[in-house]
Amino acid sequence: MNEKSAVERAGVCLATGFLAAGESCGIKSSGKKDVAVIVSESPADAAAVFTRNKVVAAPIIVSKRHLQNRRARAVIISSGNANAATGEQGIRVAERMCDQVAASIGCSPKEVLIAQTGLIGIPLDEQLAVDAAAKVSGKVAVGGGMDAAEAIMTTDTRPKLAHASFEHEGITVTVSGMAKGAAMLSPSMATMIALIVSDASVDPAVLQGALDAAVQDSFHMMSVDGCTSTNDTVFFLANGASAAPRISSKGTAAYEQFAQAVRSVCISLAQQMAGDGEGSTKFLTMTVTGARSVSDARRAARAVTQSLLVKCSLAGENAYWGRVLSELGASGAEFNPANVEIRYGEHLVCSAGVACPHDENAVDEYMRGREIVITADLASGPHQATAWGCDLTHGYVDENMAKS
Amino acid sequence: MNEKSAVERAGVCLATGFLAAGESCGIKSSGKKDVAVIVSESPADAAAVFTRNKVVAAPIIVSKRHLQNRRARAVIISSGNANAATGEQGIRVAERMCDQVAASIGCSPKEVLIAQTGLIGIPLDEQLAVDAAAKVSGKVAVGGGMDAAEAIMTTDTRPKLAHASFEHEGITVTVSGMAKGAAMLSPSMATMIALIVSDASVDPAVLQGALDAAVQDSFHMMSVDGCTSTNDTVFFLANGASAAPRISSKGTAAYEQFAQAVRSVCISLAQQMAGDGEGSTKFLTMTVTGARSVSDARRAARAVTQSLLVKCSLAGENAYWGRVLSELGASGAEFNPANVEIRYGEHLVCSAGVACPHDENAVDEYMRGREIVITADLASGPHQATAWGCDLTHGYVDENMAKS
Repeated sequence: MNEKSAVERAGVCLATGFLAAGESCGIKSSGKKDVAVIVSESPADAAAVFTRNKVVAAPIIVSKRHLQNRRARAVIISSGNANAATGEQGIRVAERMCDQVAASIGCSPKEVLIAQTGLIGIPLDEQLAVDAAAKVSGKVAVGGGMDAAEAIMTTDTRPKLAHASFEHEGITVTVSGMAKGAAMLSPSMATMIALIVSDASVDPAVLQGALDAAVQDSFHMMSVDGCTSTNDTVFFLANGASAAPRISSKGTAAYEQFAQAVRSVCISLAQQMAGDGEGSTKFLTMTVTGARSVSDARRAARAVTQSLLVKCSLAGENAYWGRVLSELGASGAEFNPANVEIRYGEHLVCSAGVACPHDENAVDEYMRGREIVITADLASGPHQATAWGCDLTHGYVDENMAKS
Repeated sequence: MNEKSAVERAGVCLATGFLAAGESCGIKSSGKKDVAVIVSESPADAAAVFTRNKVVAAPIIVSKRHLQNRRARAVIISSGNANAATGEQGIRVAERMCDQVAASIGCSPKEVLIAQTGLIGIPLDEQLAVDAAAKVSGKVAVGGGMDAAEAIMTTDTRPKLAHASFEHEGITVTVSGMAKGAAMLSPSMATMIALIVSDASVDPAVLQGALDAAVQDSFHMMSVDGCTSTNDTVFFLANGASAAPRISSKGTAAYEQFAQAVRSVCISLAQQMAGDGEGSTKFLTMTVTGARSVSDARRAARAVTQSLLVKCSLAGENAYWGRVLSELGASGAEFNPANVEIRYGEHLVCSAGVACPHDENAVDEYMRGREIVITADLASGPHQATAWGCDLTHGYVDENMAKS
């Protein structure tokens, strides 16, 4: 096993002091792994970002309560049933799952966070869920990171992991994350489930700040279908097990290194989600430059990645820049269309807002690749932003036509 | 020929004093009809609504100039080339098309309005366009309404026409409209091309007010794919040829009748557009009741019609109400999820925000129909709104993957 695959197999356990497990517990009718538990050997500072959807799933209601003291020892994540639109019964099930994890590992239920993903509106069997929590909690180990990453997948075709590390006073600090994506993904909020862990020691308010900043540049800039889920959750636990000095405020060199590590992990996970959108065959990186403000740049880049027409063009390997220009114009960003340049890869196809001569064979060849980079220069200011998306294919339609 | 088909064949010429023609002029490579001209025998008061896209097509730039005096004699509409992102050349072509219509029928170029639809970013040949304007202007007749409706189609599978009439001091006043839709359709603006005409005599400010109000309840409440075009245009011409007294202010009984007729024509056209979305097999009517405000009701109803996941569920004939609830929650409307009721047709499937017992066979049977009505009661106030949409199928993807 080479070093890369060893790192990949470690998953979130690459950060010191984290144990994980993922098991099949009967929530998914397919029999695939469906429950993950991640435990910090010592109490960790905790931060989180949740969906902005008015309809929030039971696990979010429970996790918000448990997060009030900003400390956590464990996270349980189940897939196959969202436990959303399930009323008081759903809240009770989520609470009891946390209770069971707490009993198994020996901590307060308030130190256990929960996230769930899957179908909406279907009651989750209480005994099944509690038994699952007991079963998986009993199996956490340093080698369980990949099993945990697999257990949170729904229609994802592959697990999503990312890592970054830096030196802080001679000690290596690691930030490690895992996520699931696939659909109901939109930039209105971190529309997915992700768990980021670090062996850094970080003040919880600083931890939340670093997470919020990273989410803006990563999960908020990624779209598969523009749908905001009832269950979107990003948890971030930092347990200090690296023994590096505590990061207690922003503005220090250590904070900057830490924030950059968090950002790179979140961006990598967001890219992996966009690249594994349901039915997708293309991964789009859309960069807008020359914007009057960062918010204009973000708005414009996201608008292109969310456009059904642009997404269909990508599926058809068609460099139809007119649709890109139209979405920029509809985005609400301020610019003069007569100054816009649009490139597919290195190929300039639109200059001064109109078609310009280009090598059509070379562009056709470029569009046959899996990774498409579109760059639009609005020529209106110094700001830029990048968003990630995918194409729209029969596969997405088929996946979401199907009855569960 | 029965009365209905005679009415349908009349198209916009059902209103007194309007002539029309539609011809094949070589803009579409298919050889189908692609240019329509509609002429009022006497100068008409005119109103319009245009796209909010920052990138506006040449015909919109020209029509805005020509509309400054709020009078019009003719409208020319071409399909197959949007004449968008075509720079100064595009503006010159649109101006010359208006000049040619004016010369042919004997009016000022400022009295000619223009709309165009089709591919973005491709220069439109100037001589071809001017010749087309001359050819079609020479053929306008009372019997040309259906040809005109066909000539403005792009991927529409059928022409879209609507009519309404009322009595004003013993005289029948008619409002008649035609439209094209199919794709790049979203509620952010009347994202389509429509021409409404009436033989009423109406003050132009009142005409604009009646149009603005009708657009809010019709074209703004209709979505095929959430994409806002560069070319969206609704023109409204009223020529007074009915000889009914002039409508000079709001608040009169005649104005209310007129506004209602305009509204019903616009809603019918919007419904026809949603029901003929590219690749669509289902027509969705989404009504939200019990909202705290009209804007909340509109926002919530539109969110459901725009959801890719809801659209795929419709294609799969799957009454997955969890996705409807999630979109209501993500819409920004204020409500308590624990009080929501959702119905498919008459079938209550979600009560108090959770699943409720229902006859699954009857719901399955209902979902096999082409027209699906979903009603969500937010139980938060007295307001309601209805939006229209369609399903998302392979057909939409295929249509928009294709290279032109």
